[in-house]
Amino acid sequence: MNAPTTAQHLMPAIALRDVPAALIDTLKAHFGDRCSTAMAVREHHGRDESAYTTVPPPAAVVFAESTADVAFAVTQAAQYSVPVIPFGIGSSLEGHLLAVQGGISIDVSRMKKVLSINPEDLTVTVQPGVTRKQLNEEIKSTGLFFPIDPGADASIGGMSATRASGTNAVRYGTMRENVLGLEVVTASGEVIRTGTRARKSSAGYDLTRLMVGSEGTLGVITEVTLKLFPLPEAVSAATCSFPSIEAAVHTTIQIIQMGIPIARVELIDQNAVRMVNAYSKVSLPVQPMLLMEFHGSPASVKEQAETVQDISSEFGGQAFEWATTPEDRTRLWTARHNTYFAGLNSRPGCRVISTDTCVPISRLADCLLDSMAEVEASGIPYFLVGHVGDGNFHFGYLIDPDNAQERATAETLNNQLVARALSMDGTCTGEHGIGLHKMEFLLNETGAGAVSMMRTIKKALDPKNIMNPGKIFLD
Amino acid sequence: MNAPTTAQHLMPAIALRDVPAALIDTLKAHFGDRCSTAMAVREHHGRDESAYTTVPPPAAVVFAESTADVAFAVTQAAQYSVPVIPFGIGSSLEGHLLAVQGGISIDVSRMKKVLSINPEDLTVTVQPGVTRKQLNEEIKSTGLFFPIDPGADASIGGMSATRASGTNAVRYGTMRENVLGLEVVTASGEVIRTGTRARKSSAGYDLTRLMVGSEGTLGVITEVTLKLFPLPEAVSAATCSFPSIEAAVHTTIQIIQMGIPIARVELIDQNAVRMVNAYSKVSLPVQPMLLMEFHGSPASVKEQAETVQDISSEFGGQAFEWATTPEDRTRLWTARHNTYFAGLNSRPGCRVISTDTCVPISRLADCLLDSMAEVEASGIPYFLVGHVGDGNFHFGYLIDPDNAQERATAETLNNQLVARALSMDGTCTGEHGIGLHKMEFLLNETGAGAVSMMRTIKKALDPKNIMNPGKIFLD
Repeated sequence: MNAPTTAQHLMPAIALRDVPAALIDTLKAHFGDRCSTAMAVREHHGRDESAYTTVPPPAAVVFAESTADVAFAVTQAAQYSVPVIPFGIGSSLEGHLLAVQGGISIDVSRMKKVLSINPEDLTVTVQPGVTRKQLNEEIKSTGLFFPIDPGADASIGGMSATRASGTNAVRYGTMRENVLGLEVVTASGEVIRTGTRARKSSAGYDLTRLMVGSEGTLGVITEVTLKLFPLPEAVSAATCSFPSIEAAVHTTIQIIQMGIPIARVELIDQNAVRMVNAYSKVSLPVQPMLLMEFHGSPASVKEQAETVQDISSEFGGQAFEWATTPEDRTRLWTARHNTYFAGLNSRPGCRVISTDTCVPISRLADCLLDSMAEVEASGIPYFLVGHVGDGNFHFGYLIDPDNAQERATAETLNNQLVARALSMDGTCTGEHGIGLHKMEFLLNETGAGAVSMMRTIKKALDPKNIMNPGKIFLD
Repeated sequence: MNAPTTAQHLMPAIALRDVPAALIDTLKAHFGDRCSTAMAVREHHGRDESAYTTVPPPAAVVFAESTADVAFAVTQAAQYSVPVIPFGIGSSLEGHLLAVQGGISIDVSRMKKVLSINPEDLTVTVQPGVTRKQLNEEIKSTGLFFPIDPGADASIGGMSATRASGTNAVRYGTMRENVLGLEVVTASGEVIRTGTRARKSSAGYDLTRLMVGSEGTLGVITEVTLKLFPLPEAVSAATCSFPSIEAAVHTTIQIIQMGIPIARVELIDQNAVRMVNAYSKVSLPVQPMLLMEFHGSPASVKEQAETVQDISSEFGGQAFEWATTPEDRTRLWTARHNTYFAGLNSRPGCRVISTDTCVPISRLADCLLDSMAEVEASGIPYFLVGHVGDGNFHFGYLIDPDNAQERATAETLNNQLVARALSMDGTCTGEHGIGLHKMEFLLNETGAGAVSMMRTIKKALDPKNIMNPGKIFLD
């Protein structure tokens, strides 16, 4: 018998909780064929994009079409102390969707109505299954857009639950800053509302922010009110190649420290460039590259671009390519957006273990370069991409999922990286969340006192521990 | 006997909790003359800038000089279930500092060290007694600044506890967006840390945001890590007079809807202008006025200013006055910063009851004008100022504190205003907090479900109800 894989090793001991037939019967009676126990459906809902070994899938999947549906399912599950796991589109990278204690999956992907658009207030209210691309499509005529772009066409509910961010966060903030209010089904099946459509408020505890990033462990998000932004009058994108990662990172640091309101500044390393070239049939210079975007008035965009070009040149940046039409910009950004799949494609059968550290900007070069030296030395194939303007970057370790040694090496590399980031006053996760993968890191990062406070809150709001149990905290 | 004043009426029945002599003895033994029971000191700590009738002051005041001091005081108070009320500089407008259930005041104003400045990361870590002006003075040489400006030279601890904002929030956000991390003494006297210095994180529950705005009811803030911003290369300020409040408000709405990155846009009505003219010996045109500030590169500031001037002219704005030197800008802003005291001065012996509603920007004109008609009809003297770019505005009702009828009228006006704001999907408090004054409004705003969740959290984290009890929730 093989040694357990590292992922299995990290996985908390699975103690499946009983899902009584009476609960399934009740759900089937209410939902009809919107409650499925077919194995294929269950299996689809029992995994995500993480590299975890599959655990037994949820006992049933309920397809909710309304808040009342969600409330019904949670109320019934609560009666039997059965875990519920909210499911959007399944793009989690941290094992959020795995039924590690059994239970049922509540799929909200059919709750995909844009409920109200208030262009004059720059707000929109959506159901949780609306994806970010769908949202931007539906509001296109208003002249507004929703900037948060985590790469995947994730659901707004899932993005809220994981406090997602991505490429535009350096200018527009993360889900933390952009969710104004929520409707949430609590652990008892009650429906509550948090926040208003006002831009700011000092009215009591910030329950909105407590729910954003709670990874389904405090409630199921059934409605989200978001900030929108006017589409910039002018947009200009550029790629620039650098002689070294160091040069690209130092360029970024200087852009941020000067306060240039850059909309995007993304790093991809030469491995990623090579993989993208092969996958997308392009021929980008095989060098570290920054992809940048500037938003504003035409004059402001021009000014930003000139300043950034000056800084880049100082650090040896060259082969600037500019794009101002939407089509050309899309082409430039394809490289960045395809990195993940280009990586997967570069080593058939591999899985990606993605790191997610984020450090104060002044430590970015040290953190990144030291960690890169470690992965180079390990021999594990990898790529590197980064929302470097925020100090956030991802190594994608491309491992053979059946090779215990590779898994172990990747976990060791990640452990070293996280320890380094924490020693620099950074975080183990900039945007993916804790899930199953980073519970020990959370403890190291924030200390026993803060984790104990989180547990106290969890216990108070979910005394039966039915809301996505086994995530964030080790039970 | 007079009828009870409205403030007394609104005040929850005072049930003072016992403060045993043994606790005072222990505190005196530890703190020496930094624990005071002198009546003058107690009275100073038992009130704030709100119009509440004084309640009996705290039994003692402890002057903390370190986190350990705070932890000691809380641990001792917890042993006897004695309330503790954190005190910064006393600028609350909502009765936060009143010892409505008795207890002791923990004054953190001597904890005023700037602990670490990290200019290259645009962060700073301070003790809670540091005031915003002190902070900006101490970081001046770095080329960075801390933008949040609530008017008063408030303490950073107090600003965090009330989720304060003010004139720059339209561009730079509120304390919600600008606190990166905290050190907090919990109800059991334990010291915990939340957040890191990374710009973003998805690591577990957002305890930082839970503490920001918790008004001292979940813990005592003993350290705050803040975002800083590069001082803009160019700054330009302007005042512009308008034929009507409506014209000024519609100008603001258009500025926001166009996405112009204005740094400040403040409204003062003609009453406020008249009061400021008398108080500050200036002769501003007695008309509604917008005070604006533009930050950015010279070209961007020029562009913003031109666009805004065009919009203003469309709505009849005139008498534009521009200021670019720091001295001239200070002079322009004096009018805004002195409004509160100019108001107090306009009616000797009066107290200000300040409203704090905030509405989605499209409803700002309706909310403001209808409420203004009501206050005009009431005959209560008032002024109006607003952080109108955020949809937030304050009526200052200038009441005779001994006149029960005036108090009642002011409360009725505020009730009507809040009801109107809530019907427009706004909030009862943009930046002052709930305190003693708005508990019923909170319930109306967010609903019983959310308030019940807040209470559950409070009870779980402070089972003895010693952290600033009687605030936010009706007991």
